[in-house]
Amino acid sequence: MYRTNTCGELRLSDAGREVTLAGWVQRARKMGGMTFVDLRDRYGITQIVFESDSDTALFDAANKLGREFVVQVSGTVQERENKNKNLPTGEIEIIATSLKVLNRSDVPPFTIEDDTDGGDDLRMKYRYLDLRRSCVRGNLELRHRMAFEIRRYLDSKGFLEVETPVLIKSTPEGARDFVVPSRMNPGEFYALPQSPQTFKQLLMVSGFDRYFQIVKCFRDEDLRADRQPEFTQIDCEMSFVEQEDVLQMFEGLVKHIFKYVKDIDFADPFPRMTWADAMRLYGSDKPDTRFGMQFVELKDLTTGKGFAVMDDAEYVGAIVAPGCADYTRKQLDQLTEFVKRPQVGAKGMMWVKLENDGSIKSSVGKFYSDDELRGWLERGGANPGDLMLILAGATMKTRKQLNELRLEMGSRLGLRDPQKFSCLWVVDFPLFEWDDETQRYYAMHHPFTAPNPEDVDKLDTDTGAVRATAYDMVVNGNELGGGSIRIHDSELQDHMFRLLGLSEDEARYKFGFLMDAFKYGAPPHGGLAFGFDRFVSILAGLDSIRDVIAFPKNNSGRDMMIDAPSTIDQSQLDELSIAVTEPEKK
Amino acid sequence: MYRTNTCGELRLSDAGREVTLAGWVQRARKMGGMTFVDLRDRYGITQIVFESDSDTALFDAANKLGREFVVQVSGTVQERENKNKNLPTGEIEIIATSLKVLNRSDVPPFTIEDDTDGGDDLRMKYRYLDLRRSCVRGNLELRHRMAFEIRRYLDSKGFLEVETPVLIKSTPEGARDFVVPSRMNPGEFYALPQSPQTFKQLLMVSGFDRYFQIVKCFRDEDLRADRQPEFTQIDCEMSFVEQEDVLQMFEGLVKHIFKYVKDIDFADPFPRMTWADAMRLYGSDKPDTRFGMQFVELKDLTTGKGFAVMDDAEYVGAIVAPGCADYTRKQLDQLTEFVKRPQVGAKGMMWVKLENDGSIKSSVGKFYSDDELRGWLERGGANPGDLMLILAGATMKTRKQLNELRLEMGSRLGLRDPQKFSCLWVVDFPLFEWDDETQRYYAMHHPFTAPNPEDVDKLDTDTGAVRATAYDMVVNGNELGGGSIRIHDSELQDHMFRLLGLSEDEARYKFGFLMDAFKYGAPPHGGLAFGFDRFVSILAGLDSIRDVIAFPKNNSGRDMMIDAPSTIDQSQLDELSIAVTEPEKK
Repeated sequence: MYRTNTCGELRLSDAGREVTLAGWVQRARKMGGMTFVDLRDRYGITQIVFESDSDTALFDAANKLGREFVVQVSGTVQERENKNKNLPTGEIEIIATSLKVLNRSDVPPFTIEDDTDGGDDLRMKYRYLDLRRSCVRGNLELRHRMAFEIRRYLDSKGFLEVETPVLIKSTPEGARDFVVPSRMNPGEFYALPQSPQTFKQLLMVSGFDRYFQIVKCFRDEDLRADRQPEFTQIDCEMSFVEQEDVLQMFEGLVKHIFKYVKDIDFADPFPRMTWADAMRLYGSDKPDTRFGMQFVELKDLTTGKGFAVMDDAEYVGAIVAPGCADYTRKQLDQLTEFVKRPQVGAKGMMWVKLENDGSIKSSVGKFYSDDELRGWLERGGANPGDLMLILAGATMKTRKQLNELRLEMGSRLGLRDPQKFSCLWVVDFPLFEWDDETQRYYAMHHPFTAPNPEDVDKLDTDTGAVRATAYDMVVNGNELGGGSIRIHDSELQDHMFRLLGLSEDEARYKFGFLMDAFKYGAPPHGGLAFGFDRFVSILAGLDSIRDVIAFPKNNSGRDMMIDAPSTIDQSQLDELSIAVTEPEKK
Repeated sequence: MYRTNTCGELRLSDAGREVTLAGWVQRARKMGGMTFVDLRDRYGITQIVFESDSDTALFDAANKLGREFVVQVSGTVQERENKNKNLPTGEIEIIATSLKVLNRSDVPPFTIEDDTDGGDDLRMKYRYLDLRRSCVRGNLELRHRMAFEIRRYLDSKGFLEVETPVLIKSTPEGARDFVVPSRMNPGEFYALPQSPQTFKQLLMVSGFDRYFQIVKCFRDEDLRADRQPEFTQIDCEMSFVEQEDVLQMFEGLVKHIFKYVKDIDFADPFPRMTWADAMRLYGSDKPDTRFGMQFVELKDLTTGKGFAVMDDAEYVGAIVAPGCADYTRKQLDQLTEFVKRPQVGAKGMMWVKLENDGSIKSSVGKFYSDDELRGWLERGGANPGDLMLILAGATMKTRKQLNELRLEMGSRLGLRDPQKFSCLWVVDFPLFEWDDETQRYYAMHHPFTAPNPEDVDKLDTDTGAVRATAYDMVVNGNELGGGSIRIHDSELQDHMFRLLGLSEDEARYKFGFLMDAFKYGAPPHGGLAFGFDRFVSILAGLDSIRDVIAFPKNNSGRDMMIDAPSTIDQSQLDELSIAVTEPEKK
């Protein structure tokens, strides 16, 4: 047996016991004829004492230990003189009587401590060392606990976890599918699922009634800031439900997990906001509602005064930043620079200050009278000392820019505390999105989303205005999850495919099995999927999902540690009946 | 709301209640002015009654319902006259007051009943209908319950579930890797994991101490009877353990699950058998120990009597089939045919009968005296009425043939009851397997398996005789799981790679990250993996793992329902920088 105890469990009440521990040498220090070693394992740190005057050979051996050596130590538990209140084992130490080096260690490229990490590249290359840091491991322990508790909760609600296949068929969003050549079926390919969408719907057709799965999904797309080519979803579906049933069920799950992890009670139901309102008030379908600063529309007040920027704009929107009237010219210039960055894309920014003494200053003072400006401030509910920031331009674009500005101001004002949580349902998404380039509609969610029953008669006549029975859960400006009520009527589904520009043949090729299945008694059903990586990172108070993934990939989809992807042998290519071709010029 | 209750929950105590149910029409029958509909959902079946004399329109609508229509019915719960004791809801029925057809159904290609399934091809093509059958759904419910309970148990033992990547790097067993071209890294490929082996070892290097994962794995191989290209493992690893710790831990898990699912107590520790004994006594490393009929070796007794078959044989082995001395010539011929089938491959079979009256009959009576034959029977422990069956030839081949014959006899004698469970640890596997074709050693398990410490000095001198610290758990002749203690010493690991014919460059290319990791303090560690599909199928009393997989593939790796794999567009191939080539001639 390698150990009688872990490095985290011995207490004062164990004093006098003979024990054996095993773990890693966190650090060793020599002090006055004694050597103290902090021995670390997953469970904690225990101090080991080697005394020079008891066993010289043992003492010498202890002094040769390097950082991260793996050792087995036996000895006697003893009360410590200088107790360490910060350590659960801080009241005891082990007086060593034997020491065995189980494995040596090269000097690690960075020290294994919470507050040093050696930078991102080193961390990823030596992820196995990075994972030794208790803060990193803690994130994965949280992930384990959350996954387990989510399963327990859904099981208690009658949901069955069913594994759906990973080797499936390419779908209409196929451009982002990873594909897998089949050795047994030369020239043919599997695809990896972007989600188990069709399978969970088939399980509803099968009468499974309540399904869930915590499942890996895959998307081969250029990785923006915080995406991974493989990610984990909590995928759920229910039969004989309407939107309200789904929202209730999964609001319950989210509240339960917040309570379980953070001991937070959300007494009230989560607020709900239509997609149209979210766009109008926040310029985003995932508003960060930890703070206010809702948009104010000023087009009517700004137009017709001879200022072309305002007159030509389709939309004029503003936010009021509380207490920012004292912003300097430099600070205002910084904000202007911020909105002009290519990622935001505004042409400029206007501002109006309502000084503490009630006077007004503005970047557009020469076009508008103080009274006119006062009208703007009044509409925005500004108080003395507040600053109004204004953008003008095309509606959707300007709203998005104003959203970025709002978030930036929220950050500057410290209103985006990661330990504060604001949850929101966004509902009534549009069913379709128009694409100018291809001159056709795309499904905003996916082609199985049901239209709002009130809007079905507009499908052909006013396609863009049709609302979907779709909903997103938003937490602190992140889309935590989303879903919809599905179409269970095969005629309506056919209609949708047509509106999305899929010919009958294409639809049959891609979804024949689903269309067939719907002919044999599909129940009304709906569901949603949560991004599990995101869920964990929000509760861990982290910005990036990478920190809650054991072995993440970088922005080029590379695993820096194992160096994948990589080339494969010609013989393997031959076996698979494929060849590598020149990359396309983009 | 679609329903107030499920079809499985109403009881006599609910009589008088107004309820609404939703579900599928299992069947409808008209009898004496009434129509009875069995309404089915996942939770059960409830009888609905439509009366002709109360509401004609409603009655007419009920008579138009077809099988598998999805309906919503409201009505009053009433005590039933003819109670059905076989149904939990059999004491009540619903007197319908309204009926809404939620969806119609074409006539299904087979009826949704437990004892009809329409044959394998139809079942697979219409898997979503097959899954409506309660026996099939029951298997997946069992799977859900087992997965949950395994997680609960391992969590209680301090194991953390960690998700390891699916997009990894091709390994030495690469010929069986599925690969995935990377769009962002043209000419490079990910591989899908055949197991998370290296990642779980890295997690031990990271100090995770106890890891598990219920995880999909992938193997692109010709699918024998009961393999799937994607399958699910319960993958486990522990640090600071020896073989005994691992066996104890996971014997505990298996016993717990047997108790949980089947209420079976295995009071005693599972028996353990060396691989050498398993081969000697059963000719298999996964013996079915539900019954005896161990091999008896007769070479010394059969040789030198002038019978060339015996004299030339390297090995002569026999089993004694109890009570089979009355086998007819025809039955014996059938057995001879059985062993001569190409799948078994024996040249012939010999037999000796010990009749009830003590007399002897044998197919080799002209070569051996009754006394000599009696010596064979005695060694085999035969009783009057027993039949000895004998095969002769090369040792390993003949043992395998005799294993097939033993299993066949076990089946014929009804000794392989699927409701009886016999568990066994097979230990001391050889570390290496010699391959005649390539004239080199292969790792019997994988290249990370530690040699038995007692045999390390034989690595170079007597390579084939080195035992591994490897173990399999065998249940009823199935390999339920297996694992090993791993090498944690990077020098020993290098040595192993050399013995397996991997050059330093190859080893570095394939496993550089693991070899690097082992330089930074790898703890002693070991683990195992269970085949989860097999585990469920054994406890469900099923022969095939296909029956416990929601959407399985057939023997050609095809999903018959979604028709995958399939061809993909040229544009998609171009995007991925690959082309399809002519399949190799085999």
